[in-house]
Amino acid sequence: MASTAGVRHMKVGFLGLGAMGAAMATNLLKAGHEVTVWNRSPAAAEPLAALGAAVASTPAEAARGEVVLSMLANDAAVRAVILDGGVLDAMAPGTVHANHATVSVALAQELTQAHVARGVGYVAAPVFGRPDVAAAGRLNILAAGEPRAIERVRPLLEAMGSRVWPLGEAPERASVAKIAGNFMLAAAIESMAEASALVRAHGIGAADFLEIMTGTLFAAPAYQGYAKLIAEQRFKPAGFALPLGYKDVGLALSAGEAARVPLPFAGVLRDSLLEALAAGDEDVDWSVLSQVAARRAHLDERAG
Amino acid sequence: MASTAGVRHMKVGFLGLGAMGAAMATNLLKAGHEVTVWNRSPAAAEPLAALGAAVASTPAEAARGEVVLSMLANDAAVRAVILDGGVLDAMAPGTVHANHATVSVALAQELTQAHVARGVGYVAAPVFGRPDVAAAGRLNILAAGEPRAIERVRPLLEAMGSRVWPLGEAPERASVAKIAGNFMLAAAIESMAEASALVRAHGIGAADFLEIMTGTLFAAPAYQGYAKLIAEQRFKPAGFALPLGYKDVGLALSAGEAARVPLPFAGVLRDSLLEALAAGDEDVDWSVLSQVAARRAHLDERAG
Amino acid sequence: MASTAGVRHMKVGFLGLGAMGAAMATNLLKAGHEVTVWNRSPAAAEPLAALGAAVASTPAEAARGEVVLSMLANDAAVRAVILDGGVLDAMAPGTVHANHATVSVALAQELTQAHVARGVGYVAAPVFGRPDVAAAGRLNILAAGEPRAIERVRPLLEAMGSRVWPLGEAPERASVAKIAGNFMLAAAIESMAEASALVRAHGIGAADFLEIMTGTLFAAPAYQGYAKLIAEQRFKPAGFALPLGYKDVGLALSAGEAARVPLPFAGVLRDSLLEALAAGDEDVDWSVLSQVAARRAHLDERAG
Amino acid sequence: MASTAGVRHMKVGFLGLGAMGAAMATNLLKAGHEVTVWNRSPAAAEPLAALGAAVASTPAEAARGEVVLSMLANDAAVRAVILDGGVLDAMAPGTVHANHATVSVALAQELTQAHVARGVGYVAAPVFGRPDVAAAGRLNILAAGEPRAIERVRPLLEAMGSRVWPLGEAPERASVAKIAGNFMLAAAIESMAEASALVRAHGIGAADFLEIMTGTLFAAPAYQGYAKLIAEQRFKPAGFALPLGYKDVGLALSAGEAARVPLPFAGVLRDSLLEALAAGDEDVDWSVLSQVAARRAHLDERAG
Repeated sequence: MASTAGVRHMKVGFLGLGAMGAAMATNLLKAGHEVTVWNRSPAAAEPLAALGAAVASTPAEAARGEVVLSMLANDAAVRAVILDGGVLDAMAPGTVHANHATVSVALAQELTQAHVARGVGYVAAPVFGRPDVAAAGRLNILAAGEPRAIERVRPLLEAMGSRVWPLGEAPERASVAKIAGNFMLAAAIESMAEASALVRAHGIGAADFLEIMTGTLFAAPAYQGYAKLIAEQRFKPAGFALPLGYKDVGLALSAGEAARVPLPFAGVLRDSLLEALAAGDEDVDWSVLSQVAARRAHLDERAG
Repeated sequence: MASTAGVRHMKVGFLGLGAMGAAMATNLLKAGHEVTVWNRSPAAAEPLAALGAAVASTPAEAARGEVVLSMLANDAAVRAVILDGGVLDAMAPGTVHANHATVSVALAQELTQAHVARGVGYVAAPVFGRPDVAAAGRLNILAAGEPRAIERVRPLLEAMGSRVWPLGEAPERASVAKIAGNFMLAAAIESMAEASALVRAHGIGAADFLEIMTGTLFAAPAYQGYAKLIAEQRFKPAGFALPLGYKDVGLALSAGEAARVPLPFAGVLRDSLLEALAAGDEDVDWSVLSQVAARRAHLDERAG
Repeated sequence: MASTAGVRHMKVGFLGLGAMGAAMATNLLKAGHEVTVWNRSPAAAEPLAALGAAVASTPAEAARGEVVLSMLANDAAVRAVILDGGVLDAMAPGTVHANHATVSVALAQELTQAHVARGVGYVAAPVFGRPDVAAAGRLNILAAGEPRAIERVRPLLEAMGSRVWPLGEAPERASVAKIAGNFMLAAAIESMAEASALVRAHGIGAADFLEIMTGTLFAAPAYQGYAKLIAEQRFKPAGFALPLGYKDVGLALSAGEAARVPLPFAGVLRDSLLEALAAGDEDVDWSVLSQVAARRAHLDERAG
Repeated sequence: MASTAGVRHMKVGFLGLGAMGAAMATNLLKAGHEVTVWNRSPAAAEPLAALGAAVASTPAEAARGEVVLSMLANDAAVRAVILDGGVLDAMAPGTVHANHATVSVALAQELTQAHVARGVGYVAAPVFGRPDVAAAGRLNILAAGEPRAIERVRPLLEAMGSRVWPLGEAPERASVAKIAGNFMLAAAIESMAEASALVRAHGIGAADFLEIMTGTLFAAPAYQGYAKLIAEQRFKPAGFALPLGYKDVGLALSAGEAARVPLPFAGVLRDSLLEALAAGDEDVDWSVLSQVAARRAHLDERAG
């Protein structure tokens, strides 16, 4: 979180108060902005209200400020709230909407056109970071859109993140980069899952092996967090839920389809995640991929 | 490289003076040990001689000290030098051999038995790190074998590496862990290769995308080094040559076969590396995987 | 084509006169039925008119008989014509619609509900066979739907096919079986493509190899037809166009997703077909998969 | 089995009396040839002796005729019997050895050189067909080698098979073609396995679906036989045992490696067969791949 000294305070609408959105809106309040929040189930707005947020009873009501930020779950939610739920219609020409959700390339393009048609600025601003990172104001935020629109929301992005990464004017590019990054995350998990199954079958503890790897070549946040979950086989509560992971790999496959890019690793990931879903428990972290790899090798039956 | 104060100086034979071995032997000399070196082509021994090493004309001649270290290219070279080349026969009972090569699980087991039969201690000690890391004495060294044998060579390992990671008494375990780690490296490269093809097809420069990734979630040595090569499409000179990469993925598949562990990512890697080899140029870094991913999407034809 | 002696002649609407639909409608006319045809581009209706068909200028106009048969290209065309184009609205309660297109499971379910709501019988009746088989009246026709609706259209199906295969009352089952069958076809082509690349690289002609295979273990229509195209590398004109093949594998993946069934072969097929599409020429037969397999091995460069 | 009228009777040695070899040797006896048989476990020779065969107590003893035929299990057995077991040494210059086993490309090349060095003719003659086909004298026999050597053994091949398929002079070509054909068989099984899991998950019986497929597009021996096993989930006794199937896919991957040909379907097959082996029961038919596909989708848990 950058220093906020000298930053003009803005009237901001914030839509979507899941774990991520709530943490982000909190940081906007802390930075002194005037925030009106909305969430589908109203209870989530209460802690924000306690911090000084106004609470809107409809999305459109939250869209009357100079900037709207949204952190919604998926394509369907973005479509329902922004396009069909009246948000875009409620925004005055000249205002700006920054969309933090990971959406498909197709929806990114549709949103761009819809905003242009209304004279509303549009910034695609997906983020990297889990809820604890969001709470610390240390998200990495991708940003693509018209330069003026990006400049307009930059103070808000800087209140929520440690760094803003510009990706040019076409909003869909931020979507593609985020989708590609999530694909790399999924691949990192699968590679730890397969490697752990291999070493376990040869008598080495997964925890010992992963400690070496994440202490040396793979000393990176993406690996260290998931290595812990894999080593401890602790898949609940989900940091990032399995169905969301499946959705994200699907977005990568769709983005590949649209641009004719074969992605063999994504195909393997799709099947492994689908196998995890077929096991029946959706309420688990996507690092449950390690269980799929172990089950393919029938490792648990050997232990006996 | 740990402090060497108070370390007893040993009589060491060192076999194999490629880029890695030469750097490692140099650090042993710097630490004050009495080193006799041997290399298949003698020219590589000259710089070591200039630093005070004795030069042996046969592997067996280098095997007369209290400890022998070897850093040979692959299973065939290890077999030719250690088993068939007279090294093991030349070692006195009670001495110790530390093998730094990445070898197959099958050869690891065969070596273990052969050393036991001769009464020679055996430590499997594969390393993580490229030549520059070796030169800095900052390798990560896995070590499996009898505890007494490991203790015997520990001062030498500590002269060459920043950390020694114990993996128990069965030498093959260090082989498996090293093989699994190299598989994870290969997977990291392939995931960057596919992700880069995807973003490029959507108009984003691979360098821009990889800068974000390796500056955030993937801020780890394994990613940062290869991201640079992929971004610059600079595959020569090879840091890690394509045929070696293919060999290592083959070792992972074999280790999986021996223990009945399916490894779908390794299967994809095998095919992608084989496709790179079919292109005809073997003298390239294995990050040439990124060219394979781009070719599958016919990206270069689009640029025109 | 079964004998038509004693069959009551029906008033039939037929929608969609591509190569398949035209051949099917021709056989209905030959069997003595009163057929009103419609096609998006009217020229295709002329040969049918010459055989005695009435020509409708809108789909709804063709939908006034006791039975409507449709052979449309894909989900979008079926939706545009049947649901949004007024066909279903034009059909009287008690009439029956038989849909010969390969559609997604999702659309199959939606169509079922829409027909029930209108009181119109619905039979999913996808077919196996290429245009020459259709012309000979020798299609294999899957049929799922209410038994009474199937019985109603059976004389028509028997005029177009050599056999009707019942698949129960849920129309989506015929879709799934057809999708699964097309997936098996795609897999047969890919397996010939890879095997042919392998033998060619070892100096054996693909034609010689495939002659053995399709003369022995694989003496089946699915193999013999495509083996010829692969052996002769004759991909134009397309018997079954590459984009349709890609679509069908996508339908298999979607059906797998809906029911949580991993399909690793379909994932490979998806990437290989996408690689063929990335090469730029969409107007080719999907047996062009054999070219993709050969290109991965850089076979053409070796010939020189 | 062709007519044997006018065929000169030969002195033949036959090595390897498994289900296949015993049936083949029986047909040689029936055709009037003078056959000396050998098998590692002598009991298998008794039925042949009852039909008039001489029984040798060592392989070399059976190798004293004008032609030796061998039907051994794998590379190791061929090496042990032919090269290390004295057979080749016992054969007189000018005699011919026809090898019916499926061997690796590497061994095929080594055998060719060894025979040339001894002045013994060598014919690689792998066969397609299961034991019942062999008993009926209706095998399809590939044949590669010097034309004169092939002509010499042709009357014997015609006594055992319905057709001989020539593949040129390089014996390894017959190996490659056989390996590629077995790969296609494996792919056919996997495609039925995945398709069956897909339709089952949508409520269609695998038997119903496979009856349609093998009655129409896939009306070929390769499909019909395995479809029955898959439909009935009857994997014992093994027609073709799982470990042999795994070995054969490994031979395809090795042949691909040798000639730089990526084989993505073979990679999937390798993992699926390995997953079946990990389940612990090796004494099953390789169509147990259908159980692997069903388990990935957790189909059995849904039934309950």
